[in-house]
Amino acid sequence: MPDLRDILRVRPDTRLAEIDPRGTPGLPGGKTVGKDPKRWSKTEVAAISQELAGYQERMFASAKEGATDKRVLLLLQAMDCGGKDGTVRNVTQGMSPAGMTAVSFGPPSEEERRHDFLWRVRRALPAPGYVGIFNRSQYEDVLIVRVHDLVGEDVWSQRYDAINEFEAEQAAGGLTMVKVMLHISKGEQKQRLLDRLDDPAKNWKYNPGDLTERARWDDYQQAYQDALTRCSTAAAPWHVVPADRKWYRNWAVATLLRETFADLDPRYPAPDFDVDAERAKLLAAG
Amino acid sequence: MPDLRDILRVRPDTRLAEIDPRGTPGLPGGKTVGKDPKRWSKTEVAAISQELAGYQERMFASAKEGATDKRVLLLLQAMDCGGKDGTVRNVTQGMSPAGMTAVSFGPPSEEERRHDFLWRVRRALPAPGYVGIFNRSQYEDVLIVRVHDLVGEDVWSQRYDAINEFEAEQAAGGLTMVKVMLHISKGEQKQRLLDRLDDPAKNWKYNPGDLTERARWDDYQQAYQDALTRCSTAAAPWHVVPADRKWYRNWAVATLLRETFADLDPRYPAPDFDVDAERAKLLAAG
Repeated sequence: MPDLRDILRVRPDTRLAEIDPRGTPGLPGGKTVGKDPKRWSKTEVAAISQELAGYQERMFASAKEGATDKRVLLLLQAMDCGGKDGTVRNVTQGMSPAGMTAVSFGPPSEEERRHDFLWRVRRALPAPGYVGIFNRSQYEDVLIVRVHDLVGEDVWSQRYDAINEFEAEQAAGGLTMVKVMLHISKGEQKQRLLDRLDDPAKNWKYNPGDLTERARWDDYQQAYQDALTRCSTAAAPWHVVPADRKWYRNWAVATLLRETFADLDPRYPAPDFDVDAERAKLLAAG
Repeated sequence: MPDLRDILRVRPDTRLAEIDPRGTPGLPGGKTVGKDPKRWSKTEVAAISQELAGYQERMFASAKEGATDKRVLLLLQAMDCGGKDGTVRNVTQGMSPAGMTAVSFGPPSEEERRHDFLWRVRRALPAPGYVGIFNRSQYEDVLIVRVHDLVGEDVWSQRYDAINEFEAEQAAGGLTMVKVMLHISKGEQKQRLLDRLDDPAKNWKYNPGDLTERARWDDYQQAYQDALTRCSTAAAPWHVVPADRKWYRNWAVATLLRETFADLDPRYPAPDFDVDAERAKLLAAG
């Protein structure tokens, strides 16, 4: 089976507008998935998540005593209702919270605004051995900031290069980024916003400001188009995951992580003590 | 069924030495558990964890816009091999990492040593709406520090009161602490240390220093005895969970959390916007 990372990777000629948010690229053949793709995905994602937990533990173990600087960051961007929270909950279900740091980036605080836009991002990066989760990221500074002219074009237009430089530097320092845009359609967003209004248990996720952002849909798509193609580098490629179908989205993101970890292939470290001597001491001491 | 918190709570006359680490206090009757308690526990803990995820989401939602200062902290202490990591992985399996902060306390850093022993603990507390996990805690400062005379008795003997004051202050500020000592036997620790030596995938968890600590077993039990009884307060009671049987341990800690959340009873907040007006705007805008 071809690598899903190759199938979903953003290339210079990728056009977001041409990617179908209801698509299921790279999905195994019908025989594997069967007649109930939701059920198949649930079982499959649970199984992949257990594999991810194994990788997570081996990476965590291998970073003990500073033996490696490897760490993995899942970075998620999406329009409102794109499914970032649900994706995280599904793909991390088997992982240990002790080896994970999850960060959501909202509007910058006063302190954060006093620094360069990458300052708060650097502070939130996972330590060696850890899996990091970014719910939104440095890309907000070329998305909402650009769409709403929060800084001038002379400022935001410089940020693509700044981000590429930053990510290359981090990659050289042991960070593997899995950058994913969850791509939903405008119609699907409408349906999900309606769900949030109709279901009292979901009201809290709704924000009247969501409609202001939705009105700028096309501007956002253009800002995403530029961010994706300008910042999909060899060191840190972007992937677009069609996300109208949640079951596909969960499977795809879990699979991207699995492929990434398989390449990293973290191993338990060799003991830095004499196992037999320790066993003898333990047995002798009672 | 009686509340498990009452059954496991540390009272002034609690004697750790009299609690059987292989016990299963408060376990439902044999008919419920059936002939395969491990299997029963796995299913039950997965189900409780889903309930906990619901509570977590409602508490997280209710803290939006600063509407509540409620947060919950699971604080775990145990002898080496007591099962802190495994417990966390099991009870949090359904929860969202986005609403959780897990912190492990190792030996204090140089910066931490320059401050009061509670300084690093304050910084690690969960924010309103969040579930926090402490793997070790402020209690290390009356356990390992006391056993190894890292400070004089004149210093550590003051810390029980300092901890009680600190915890009462936090409880008044909206923090609900679930303090759990995972209680294993010396024989079980030996078996688990042997496992860590015999299984190459577990070598990394072994530390030659573990034998030094094990040699001080009785001193640690005495230090635990004092910490448990002196710091089991109305604001923040201690619980001892017999932990030689992992399936009981997981069920008991999950149940303590469920009971705690049921009392807190977090609710989705009422919308602070006009739902019908928003729906009309959304439908009109297309």
